[in-house]
Amino acid sequence: MRFIHVPIQEGDPVTIWIDNKRAFLIKVKKGKRLDTDKGYIIHDQLIGKEYGEIIKISKGEAYLLKPTPMDIYTTLPRPSQVVYPKDASYIIYASGIQPGDTVVEAGTGSGFLTITLAYFLGPNGKVISYDVREDMQNKAKQNALMLNLLDRIEFKIKDIRQGIDEKEVSAVILDMPDPWNAVSKAYEALKPSGSLIVFVPTVNQIEKTVLQMRNEGFIDIHAEELILREYQVKENAVRPKNIGVMHTGYLIRGRKYIKGTSL
Amino acid sequence: MRFIHVPIQEGDPVTIWIDNKRAFLIKVKKGKRLDTDKGYIIHDQLIGKEYGEIIKISKGEAYLLKPTPMDIYTTLPRPSQVVYPKDASYIIYASGIQPGDTVVEAGTGSGFLTITLAYFLGPNGKVISYDVREDMQNKAKQNALMLNLLDRIEFKIKDIRQGIDEKEVSAVILDMPDPWNAVSKAYEALKPSGSLIVFVPTVNQIEKTVLQMRNEGFIDIHAEELILREYQVKENAVRPKNIGVMHTGYLIRGRKYIKGTSL
Amino acid sequence: MRFIHVPIQEGDPVTIWIDNKRAFLIKVKKGKRLDTDKGYIIHDQLIGKEYGEIIKISKGEAYLLKPTPMDIYTTLPRPSQVVYPKDASYIIYASGIQPGDTVVEAGTGSGFLTITLAYFLGPNGKVISYDVREDMQNKAKQNALMLNLLDRIEFKIKDIRQGIDEKEVSAVILDMPDPWNAVSKAYEALKPSGSLIVFVPTVNQIEKTVLQMRNEGFIDIHAEELILREYQVKENAVRPKNIGVMHTGYLIRGRKYIKGTSL
Amino acid sequence: MRFIHVPIQEGDPVTIWIDNKRAFLIKVKKGKRLDTDKGYIIHDQLIGKEYGEIIKISKGEAYLLKPTPMDIYTTLPRPSQVVYPKDASYIIYASGIQPGDTVVEAGTGSGFLTITLAYFLGPNGKVISYDVREDMQNKAKQNALMLNLLDRIEFKIKDIRQGIDEKEVSAVILDMPDPWNAVSKAYEALKPSGSLIVFVPTVNQIEKTVLQMRNEGFIDIHAEELILREYQVKENAVRPKNIGVMHTGYLIRGRKYIKGTSL
Repeated sequence: MRFIHVPIQEGDPVTIWIDNKRAFLIKVKKGKRLDTDKGYIIHDQLIGKEYGEIIKISKGEAYLLKPTPMDIYTTLPRPSQVVYPKDASYIIYASGIQPGDTVVEAGTGSGFLTITLAYFLGPNGKVISYDVREDMQNKAKQNALMLNLLDRIEFKIKDIRQGIDEKEVSAVILDMPDPWNAVSKAYEALKPSGSLIVFVPTVNQIEKTVLQMRNEGFIDIHAEELILREYQVKENAVRPKNIGVMHTGYLIRGRKYIKGTSL
Repeated sequence: MRFIHVPIQEGDPVTIWIDNKRAFLIKVKKGKRLDTDKGYIIHDQLIGKEYGEIIKISKGEAYLLKPTPMDIYTTLPRPSQVVYPKDASYIIYASGIQPGDTVVEAGTGSGFLTITLAYFLGPNGKVISYDVREDMQNKAKQNALMLNLLDRIEFKIKDIRQGIDEKEVSAVILDMPDPWNAVSKAYEALKPSGSLIVFVPTVNQIEKTVLQMRNEGFIDIHAEELILREYQVKENAVRPKNIGVMHTGYLIRGRKYIKGTSL
Repeated sequence: MRFIHVPIQEGDPVTIWIDNKRAFLIKVKKGKRLDTDKGYIIHDQLIGKEYGEIIKISKGEAYLLKPTPMDIYTTLPRPSQVVYPKDASYIIYASGIQPGDTVVEAGTGSGFLTITLAYFLGPNGKVISYDVREDMQNKAKQNALMLNLLDRIEFKIKDIRQGIDEKEVSAVILDMPDPWNAVSKAYEALKPSGSLIVFVPTVNQIEKTVLQMRNEGFIDIHAEELILREYQVKENAVRPKNIGVMHTGYLIRGRKYIKGTSL
Repeated sequence: MRFIHVPIQEGDPVTIWIDNKRAFLIKVKKGKRLDTDKGYIIHDQLIGKEYGEIIKISKGEAYLLKPTPMDIYTTLPRPSQVVYPKDASYIIYASGIQPGDTVVEAGTGSGFLTITLAYFLGPNGKVISYDVREDMQNKAKQNALMLNLLDRIEFKIKDIRQGIDEKEVSAVILDMPDPWNAVSKAYEALKPSGSLIVFVPTVNQIEKTVLQMRNEGFIDIHAEELILREYQVKENAVRPKNIGVMHTGYLIRGRKYIKGTSL
């Protein structure tokens, strides 16, 4: 028995996976075509197929996959550095956000984390993404549109250090050069018991941020780092890959308490 | 201005956070009392308070927090080893699951991953958790009940190697000694393009699992490992903590394609 | 054929290795006895035996081994924290010292690094070890005596920040809280092209030390960190050990050039 | 006061260090010239100078340094993969070798470990290096000659699995695809209490080697791995470098006991 799935339609995002070095994220549009060094794909071909199918290309095969955040990471055009999957996943987990929550984020960057948050928050969730650079946000918008997640995101061109318009949000996530200057604004925007998560590349930034958070109404503060090793698996010869990413950044997390309430 | 939040009521789960070494997860019940070496808390005291508040205890203060998966990890009674947050977060992320999805998992263990999946899948999501040990599942049920997440989970006392009853699930997650013996069953249960995620502690298990997955209709297969370092932050003295967890396990991920469909 | 080796004599150091958790370093002395929870050994028994032999003890067997620096690390009494083997080995390597060289070190600590240096510098080498604490140096002297390496070491009770008496030494090795305050003294003591190696536990100390070295006549400056993972090997089940040392310290290295000589 | 050092003479090895990306190892020879993208150096210029001096080149300055094993690693031509400094240093340390010892090694490879061993064993030490490939050994010989360490090394074109000619050596070091096939030969060649050190890139090789060593008269067996992170130090911005070497190989060490001697 073969199940009948909703077939791929125009406007659907599709990951075209050829091999571990060749994956492409497209939004199906009649008349368009994807060119790769292994062959080309006419978008029209994909309409009516389903996720999981294989199509022949001139130098092999391409797999049609339903885009996951990992695909988004692998395939999205990146005008700036993005938060890596290992860090994005831990941010989401540690923030304790749930489907339907509202989350504030700054800066937008290329929108990878923004889109990932929108993905996990579901159709009733909301991401408010602050950045001072309009050009970056425009790129992020295009990326969100490609994934059909634009309606879950509100982009604001504003310096988050000047204040957060929202109140009672579930989490604030900061990926910016001087997060300590936004800690008090994050405190004001957060729901009590809500999480502030900060991503910084240097150890000096850990120190400044943590000390600020301790003074500004946060507890359960932790600074952590994740190192990911990918393994090469051959029969009778398993080992980590030789070259890789040694460092991306540090993750700081803490939770807001209501100051002056000790009863 | 102070927002009015829904106050804590009987039956609500609360994380009682005293310091980094003392956190307790309770389900508020009139007449009950929590004893700690820093003082005791009468559950009745908590009713009407809100998350984020502080209460005095005999030797200090306790913070009332809304339980997150990280709290669940830190505080849940563990009859068996649990998947760590660093791994649980990456499993959820890499699986590409979304609010409302259905996920199959084996084994249940103490239910930490089960509950975490239920948390992120939201009220419309469903976790089907297989295990052969009824005593473990009973403990997991109690833990799920404490978090009010029991209605999102279906526990089955069944050896997953004998087959998965469900079809068209979004992801299958295996944490068992011989996952390679469940790979073909996972394939059958998965929706095309769906993810199989496997957690194993030894390198030998990576090899067997990956080779099996390559032969059984999975692509985009990766074997990875995450190492987490926690930092100690003092003014002018930041460094990783000296002793810690050097190893938990390896994560293998892959996605189902429809065999024999090359068009 | 069995080779005739010089037998163990009174005054020789011997590692008594019982298992990975039980190793003891003794200096053979007639009439003495070593007590362990696996049984006792009368020193007199060992005289005339050779390294590599096994002797029965009441609850098993003990192996007589010739002490290596690794044994010294494992077995020496430690009144203070010691430099770990992974770091000691890299310090020696990176310093470029050779048999016969003279090396200055501060502080002495428990003498583990001092003794290790003496071991690798050979009978014509010399270690000058500075410390302000006489009690520490006395302990270090006892340890050096046990290994019969005392004649290669000169202990000085002096604050190295006040100056180094020696000139033209091959390397200076600093393991002290504020090494930046000794950088100029190290420069004066070193032979041109000689190495300054610094071991520090915090990232803040890296920054201060490296900036000082850049200003004080050093080039080829590197700050590095080593993480060691030990593996548990069982047939068909190989994996890193779960708990271990996540952090010891950072290693900084640089080499002296002759200031103002650009020709 | 300026010390008078032995000046650089023809035949001396010199590290020409320009910056962290430009270092060159030369053996001074009249009439030769070193060309770099920062300018050239006539060898004759160097004669009479001393280590530690700086010379002007057309686009900057070059520092004359006395070659250390770290320089040898950085600058030597490498026809094959070499053992990294982090691993070489730990091998030497863990082997417990001392100045004047005799060590057997296989395979020779590009001779980097061979030369490093010769360096630390001093003028009375001896390295016997086995390899089946004459072309590799010829390259290694040239490298050893450049460092003036050829007289401490004996190269043998022989498959070490066929037997080791030497007896009573202090350590045997194996860097070859199937070290388990040489374990019994290493046992025969070693002095009792001497060390066998094995370097392998895959986990499967760890398992085979360790199991073999346990059966062949070795104790105190450990399998370990070292991960090195280099830090980038800027004022107020210290962090690990982003990309680096995630994996080189695993180190196995054990010591020979005299079988059948339990007394």
